[in-house]
Amino acid sequence: MDRDEKYMQMAIAMAEGTVGQTTPNPSVAAVVVRANQVVGLGVHVKAGEPHAEVHALKMAGEKAEGAEIYVTLEPCSHYGQTPPCAQAVIDAGIKRAIIASHDPNPKVSGRGIQMMEEAGIEVKTAVLKEKADQLNRAFFHFIQTKRPYVRLKSAISMDGKIATSTGESQWITGVEARLDGHRYRHQSAAILVGVNTVMMDNPKLTTRLEGGGDNPVRIVLDTNLRTPPAAQLIQDPSAPTWIFTGAGVTEEQLTPFQNFSHVDIIQFQSEKVDIEEVVDYLGEQKITSLLIEGGATVADAFVRSGHVNEVITYMAPKVIGGEKSLTSVAGEGISSLKNIDRFEFVSSEKIGDDLKIIAVKKEG
Amino acid sequence: MDRDEKYMQMAIAMAEGTVGQTTPNPSVAAVVVRANQVVGLGVHVKAGEPHAEVHALKMAGEKAEGAEIYVTLEPCSHYGQTPPCAQAVIDAGIKRAIIASHDPNPKVSGRGIQMMEEAGIEVKTAVLKEKADQLNRAFFHFIQTKRPYVRLKSAISMDGKIATSTGESQWITGVEARLDGHRYRHQSAAILVGVNTVMMDNPKLTTRLEGGGDNPVRIVLDTNLRTPPAAQLIQDPSAPTWIFTGAGVTEEQLTPFQNFSHVDIIQFQSEKVDIEEVVDYLGEQKITSLLIEGGATVADAFVRSGHVNEVITYMAPKVIGGEKSLTSVAGEGISSLKNIDRFEFVSSEKIGDDLKIIAVKKEG
Repeated sequence: MDRDEKYMQMAIAMAEGTVGQTTPNPSVAAVVVRANQVVGLGVHVKAGEPHAEVHALKMAGEKAEGAEIYVTLEPCSHYGQTPPCAQAVIDAGIKRAIIASHDPNPKVSGRGIQMMEEAGIEVKTAVLKEKADQLNRAFFHFIQTKRPYVRLKSAISMDGKIATSTGESQWITGVEARLDGHRYRHQSAAILVGVNTVMMDNPKLTTRLEGGGDNPVRIVLDTNLRTPPAAQLIQDPSAPTWIFTGAGVTEEQLTPFQNFSHVDIIQFQSEKVDIEEVVDYLGEQKITSLLIEGGATVADAFVRSGHVNEVITYMAPKVIGGEKSLTSVAGEGISSLKNIDRFEFVSSEKIGDDLKIIAVKKEG
Repeated sequence: MDRDEKYMQMAIAMAEGTVGQTTPNPSVAAVVVRANQVVGLGVHVKAGEPHAEVHALKMAGEKAEGAEIYVTLEPCSHYGQTPPCAQAVIDAGIKRAIIASHDPNPKVSGRGIQMMEEAGIEVKTAVLKEKADQLNRAFFHFIQTKRPYVRLKSAISMDGKIATSTGESQWITGVEARLDGHRYRHQSAAILVGVNTVMMDNPKLTTRLEGGGDNPVRIVLDTNLRTPPAAQLIQDPSAPTWIFTGAGVTEEQLTPFQNFSHVDIIQFQSEKVDIEEVVDYLGEQKITSLLIEGGATVADAFVRSGHVNEVITYMAPKVIGGEKSLTSVAGEGISSLKNIDRFEFVSSEKIGDDLKIIAVKKEG
């Protein structure tokens, strides 16, 4: 690891700490270095607040003059809620800028770099790019496709079961894995389940983490509006609940839900709720990331639609067996292995006694 | 890693290279070191041939006088097919012996060490013991229980499927994983399948590795003797085939198999072939390790019997889905998570595009 990689590694570690809190913006960190001394640090804390570079340059103050800046993402070149960061870097007198990832928006990618180069700053790009890209995989996907980054999460035994044949499922994985799972709720803009899961498990779908966490928007795929008004998702107002129905739902069916201001019922034109429509709608609503926790039929519909970007599997060191035991992805299933989506394993690690396995979709 | 660990690590790496070729003996290596120079090396090559210590001492010759010996397993203390190695170490004038694992046989464990200590040799034990124990997990299990070490191997998708709902299964995992799977055939004394697998897939169950490999004894669980005489297991004589049947099979049914000298039909007393009887019988036949490759009903029966010691899972980066898609362990399944066998994940690593996950049974 050379000197540039060392400081970039530091910046990436800083940005990692903020994943989930900046939506719909990316997680970004910046480090200002002068004569091998760290003189400024910054992260983007929350959408609408200053970008990482601004915090780092402010902390560095006059020491930014003639210094280097390490940024995990190309400084922006446009006037948004804040002035362009590329200009702030120039104004501060930075002499060298080191960048990990390019701006993912193809319309402006490279412009921030160009602005700095035209002002005489030496720019080095693609330092630890892979690592930095992973940090904002969801954000990049959203910017490029205008659809949420979809994560499919499940907890299975070594033989792929989520419950015994008698339906017992509560404790397949351990407490550490379940807590880790809640981090994904905290980091996701929305969480989605099928109406069968609502009726069988009556989940709350909120984030339960020590020290608190953000609740995702709770979404139910419910073509015929079978969600009971007594369900926790309706009675508990701690996060918005969006119910997606088909065209056949009547005015009368909607009545029991009208008293709940956190509940929205979105009626689609098609008879049966369609995954394409769902991801398009969520993109329009600026939902950058979507977590699918079940059930097995909804998971299957998403997989077959090709809209799953990442598969997170917690595997318990148990074998359950049983022809009739439930699995994580059921429904119709794919019929041929030929045209199946290809994923790539990016990590596998122990979480408590369980194994956590992450695979991301291969593009192209 | 201190000096003792360094030389023991070297010995363990040597012993690892011989796993599978020494059955029913363990894999063992020895290194003789004098004044920080390696002067002798040895491994046990094959049952009936000299032990590792003998090779290493022979290579060291006169340099063994006053030297140290590193051995992955306690030198034997009894006259078997060879004289006791502890005596050979003493006779060679070794002044210090470093041992990783104790002899697993409780009747003689510690005796080799005692012999050497009584002869004035300084003995240090338990150096890299965990690593060395793993090397001979199957052997230790066999010595202590008189039953084979049972490995359950399967290839699944991320959602636990072994085939699509239409039965397509040939290429779930990649060529690297399939080749790695053949190494387990090479290392196992026997391989076992159910008669349904024989009828559906007509497998050969031989070891197909570049450079050759040992074929395990091929075993079919076949209560009613439904194995077709035309099956490859019967027609191909490249390894013994043992068919285990229940008591109801008639003399007449046996006739078509009598011309095949590599085929043995073992008829049990009970009506249905019982897993307890199977593992006891295999133990009596000195089958130290057993590989179960399928099908799902046999896997389930073994899991529920509590006789699975290790679960090897190759996971492909794919999601197959489907309520009716096949899973690796089916049958009746366990009905409650409470009294389930507990395993422990010991490794997970990429093999080609797939993930290889190993879990071993927790004892006690």
